Amino acid sequence: MTAQPIAFYFDFSSPYGYLAAERIDALAERHGRAVAWRPFLLGAVFKTTRTEPLLGIPLKGDYARRDIERSARGLGLPFRLPETFPFLSVAACRAFYWLLDEEPERAHALALALYRRAFAEGGDISRAQTVIEVAEALGVSRAALEAALQDPAVKERLRSEVQAAIAAGVFGSPFMVVDGEPFWGHDRLADVERWLESGGW
Amino acid sequence: MTAQPIAFYFDFSSPYGYLAAERIDALAERHGRAVAWRPFLLGAVFKTTRTEPLLGIPLKGDYARRDIERSARGLGLPFRLPETFPFLSVAACRAFYWLLDEEPERAHALALALYRRAFAEGGDISRAQTVIEVAEALGVSRAALEAALQDPAVKERLRSEVQAAIAAGVFGSPFMVVDGEPFWGHDRLADVERWLESGGW
Repeated sequence: MTAQPIAFYFDFSSPYGYLAAERIDALAERHGRAVAWRPFLLGAVFKTTRTEPLLGIPLKGDYARRDIERSARGLGLPFRLPETFPFLSVAACRAFYWLLDEEPERAHALALALYRRAFAEGGDISRAQTVIEVAEALGVSRAALEAALQDPAVKERLRSEVQAAIAAGVFGSPFMVVDGEPFWGHDRLADVERWLESGGW
Repeated sequence: MTAQPIAFYFDFSSPYGYLAAERIDALAERHGRAVAWRPFLLGAVFKTTRTEPLLGIPLKGDYARRDIERSARGLGLPFRLPETFPFLSVAACRAFYWLLDEEPERAHALALALYRRAFAEGGDISRAQTVIEVAEALGVSRAALEAALQDPAVKERLRSEVQAAIAAGVFGSPFMVVDGEPFWGHDRLADVERWLESGGW
């Protein structure tokens, strides 16, 4: 039987997305599932959901910062909030989708490496040069990626992926879809695991 | 050793608060802790946190409804969303604080009974008559409670409790504070339990 992959939507600028990214593959593997990583631009749905970046909200923002650091410590994951935050993740997303069709495994490795550069090391992955540097370390051609980041077809691909995420009902990061069932938030991974174990409830 | 009680803040209109209310006492008891139940009015901080009632938000609201029902099913708890929702929980809060000093155990029982009337049975606890009916079933005097709900001192008590919650940094429901450490959300109860077990991390 070929089970459906778990759809894993995230914004590269989302700290909770980083925490989920560090766990989702092992979780899926325990249940014989693959994971389809799908970065998108969370800002594109903020108007619809009348939302704004979490860490800038009075009270909630301070709590979230504490909760993210506590969650990372609890999971034994390094965490460092980038100085520029929140940040635009357009270049990171374009690099990912440019690689995805031809080299899905390298695209996956790039996504995780970008997340670690941002949230384990506090790097600035909003900069195209940082994205290129991280990709180069994985064997991607600098010249090809520099060209891709300016390629209208790559830009259009990202736009259509963002629209597809919104059409799938995605409005947060991380957001997982398992056999049609939506789960929002890093704190729903235990539910995702239980859903995979039990086939739902 | 007398350990501090867990502070348990909630709005009677919060479905996730109901789910937590059904679990918090047993959780605390496993660790030799008491629970200080502290209803407040979540609407009082919505302006500060630039938030609005969850279920009315596009995309998020539909998801939350599904997530609440799924969470209740997963916990084996009955769930029914009241027809009037969200609702004002002023009468429920006043009844609780009126009882609290003289009869803390009955106040606690009333809070749980009100939550069940609202979210297990779909009752309308925004109505003073419903609050009185639920309280009467617990042996509270109807006449005394009717008078208390109009008593300026009781109204003032609720106002000061809401201000105290806000001053304590509470901005959501449910919201737990364990030895000074804040946890927001029904989905942080596993963290609360781990915090109690380990003394923090």
